Amino acid sequence: MKISCAKNELVSALQIVSKAVATKPQTPILSGIYLKAEAGILELQATNYEIGMVCRIPAEIEEPGQIAISGRYFQEVIRKLPGDSVSLSFNREEKIVHIQSNQANFTLLSMNASEFPTIKPMEGNLQFKIKDNVLRSLVKKTVFACSNDESRPVFTGCYLEVADTKVTMAATNTHRLAVKYETFDESIGNIKVIIPSRILQELLHNMTSEIPTDVTVTCTYNQISFAFENLYMTSRLIEGAFPDYHRVIPPEFATVVTLDASEFSSAVDRVSLISRAGDYNIIKLEFANNQVHITSNNPDIGNAEESVAASIEGPELTIAFNAQYIMDVMKNIDSETCQIKLNQPLSPAAVRESDDEEFIYIVTPVRTAH
Amino acid sequence: MKISCAKNELVSALQIVSKAVATKPQTPILSGIYLKAEAGILELQATNYEIGMVCRIPAEIEEPGQIAISGRYFQEVIRKLPGDSVSLSFNREEKIVHIQSNQANFTLLSMNASEFPTIKPMEGNLQFKIKDNVLRSLVKKTVFACSNDESRPVFTGCYLEVADTKVTMAATNTHRLAVKYETFDESIGNIKVIIPSRILQELLHNMTSEIPTDVTVTCTYNQISFAFENLYMTSRLIEGAFPDYHRVIPPEFATVVTLDASEFSSAVDRVSLISRAGDYNIIKLEFANNQVHITSNNPDIGNAEESVAASIEGPELTIAFNAQYIMDVMKNIDSETCQIKLNQPLSPAAVRESDDEEFIYIVTPVRTAH
Repeated sequence: MKISCAKNELVSALQIVSKAVATKPQTPILSGIYLKAEAGILELQATNYEIGMVCRIPAEIEEPGQIAISGRYFQEVIRKLPGDSVSLSFNREEKIVHIQSNQANFTLLSMNASEFPTIKPMEGNLQFKIKDNVLRSLVKKTVFACSNDESRPVFTGCYLEVADTKVTMAATNTHRLAVKYETFDESIGNIKVIIPSRILQELLHNMTSEIPTDVTVTCTYNQISFAFENLYMTSRLIEGAFPDYHRVIPPEFATVVTLDASEFSSAVDRVSLISRAGDYNIIKLEFANNQVHITSNNPDIGNAEESVAASIEGPELTIAFNAQYIMDVMKNIDSETCQIKLNQPLSPAAVRESDDEEFIYIVTPVRTAH
Repeated sequence: MKISCAKNELVSALQIVSKAVATKPQTPILSGIYLKAEAGILELQATNYEIGMVCRIPAEIEEPGQIAISGRYFQEVIRKLPGDSVSLSFNREEKIVHIQSNQANFTLLSMNASEFPTIKPMEGNLQFKIKDNVLRSLVKKTVFACSNDESRPVFTGCYLEVADTKVTMAATNTHRLAVKYETFDESIGNIKVIIPSRILQELLHNMTSEIPTDVTVTCTYNQISFAFENLYMTSRLIEGAFPDYHRVIPPEFATVVTLDASEFSSAVDRVSLISRAGDYNIIKLEFANNQVHITSNNPDIGNAEESVAASIEGPELTIAFNAQYIMDVMKNIDSETCQIKLNQPLSPAAVRESDDEEFIYIVTPVRTAH
């Protein structure tokens, strides 16, 4: 293999694929990045068997071929190179890769490329195209609600349900639930899968195009892939049954509160400075007199209180939440105003966005001594 | 106590004094920040008995007084306040501090202010004024060369020697030595002390004025203080004798190499990507044919080489260094060009700045197998 390419494109590609390089590799080859040069394209691959990343960049190819190379050192060396362009060449006898840019010359020991478990495009039971901005919204509004508790795997991913023209994504850690719907113009099939939050976070990170772009999603019984622009990302799916989240969503609410989202969010952030030092991070919300009075109290530190104007329809009430669960949803609300919908102090409440009918967040209150 | 002041000024003052709040306090009061309001000034103090910080800001004082309050929570709360102005008031019966800014109200438990070991202005054996840009240069060009090894305290600080009109600062970890001189117009006395690197780092961080400002330095046998603008910083001194560094500086050098500082620095940074993974971080410098050829080699990773143009006077030679010791000094060179002065492959070398005759750095080479 003998090629040259733009340094900044190689740096970006390495940043993306390096997320799939195994930090504690099951076999040494998984700590490597696989490169294949062919027909004007340099393809980079990395996988830790959980997720896989493929990124393609244009390259001048003098001699096609494939190599595998330690991900960590390759990335560090490329990032520090002095020039705008990088040359890579593989010396088959010495099993080393030469890297050259301006006056700088590096050689890195290579790995055995034939041992690398290369990622092949999946052929799936279901394939559909979705605009990246629509997919971004489905993921962004739900993935934050996943659990980190690996002992209950179904809660560590987002549930994706495709039913004809309706796409739903949902996530819960059993204390709070986020659900986001989207509707398509035509039927795209039927599927129910649980996608690990890890690949969805990477997807959010990499879907950066300024104009809407098609993402091709392909599912099999145990894998999912996302293809867009010069990227191909794949992940195993989580096995198990996602709970019936519909029955968690109360059919109606007695009290509906409308608030300025950013005012409320900042106030909760400040008041929870006191509560977050404790074990449960509990804030109390008192909805009365067309305002919400937010308080927290920690006998070892002090207390905090702040009021935010609110339009309250229905009975007034006082309710307490884990502040983190309120903060998490508020960070993902894009509308200027939001609604908090309530029944009783110990019944699940909802947070809705004024400009997004297709998003709902359910949060379980906490019982407080007072 | 009842006062109000500008939020941003209080935030800045807290950032400064919080550096002296004890992380593992010997007594609980040392985790606090002491505030004294008097005559239009709010004074903040913190100390961990090693270093002490005092910062003064203007305040509207309705009722003078003094309080002590948990450093950690006070700082977090003030930083997050919504308004431009902050009111603080102390409730003596409840022993709490009220903090108010716009709609936000906090109360924090107070500590017993009378227990706080307040910092009083020192009366010293020696006091002199020095411009902050001169002091900055003395500190910046030496403090990086200190050791972190607490088992040999004299090497963890900078040696300050004042002898009539000459001020010298020096630091060494026994493998490398940095010395910086300054000359005053008139005699400022005589003193030899070792100042902990910690307070000098804070001093560098806080000397941010754009126009030259006077810093008043006061020394006693075991303490030093720096006073400038609205700040007063104090530190214990390190006991012990600083080694006679003069005899480490070779009187003459056989080879003098002149280099572009930033080219050389970047090349060393890149080449050491390979060596820094090893135990000794060794780079080899080959001075010949009017260039320096920099190489490193790690059998488990690969190797790196790069050449930088150099003007060489005297015999050519090859020498090896700990790359970190070269990187450290290069980061603190402000001139466009630098000199490397050499005798033999195993004799100490010097790094000098072209535009600063009053700085010298001595570094011991390492022996390599090849």
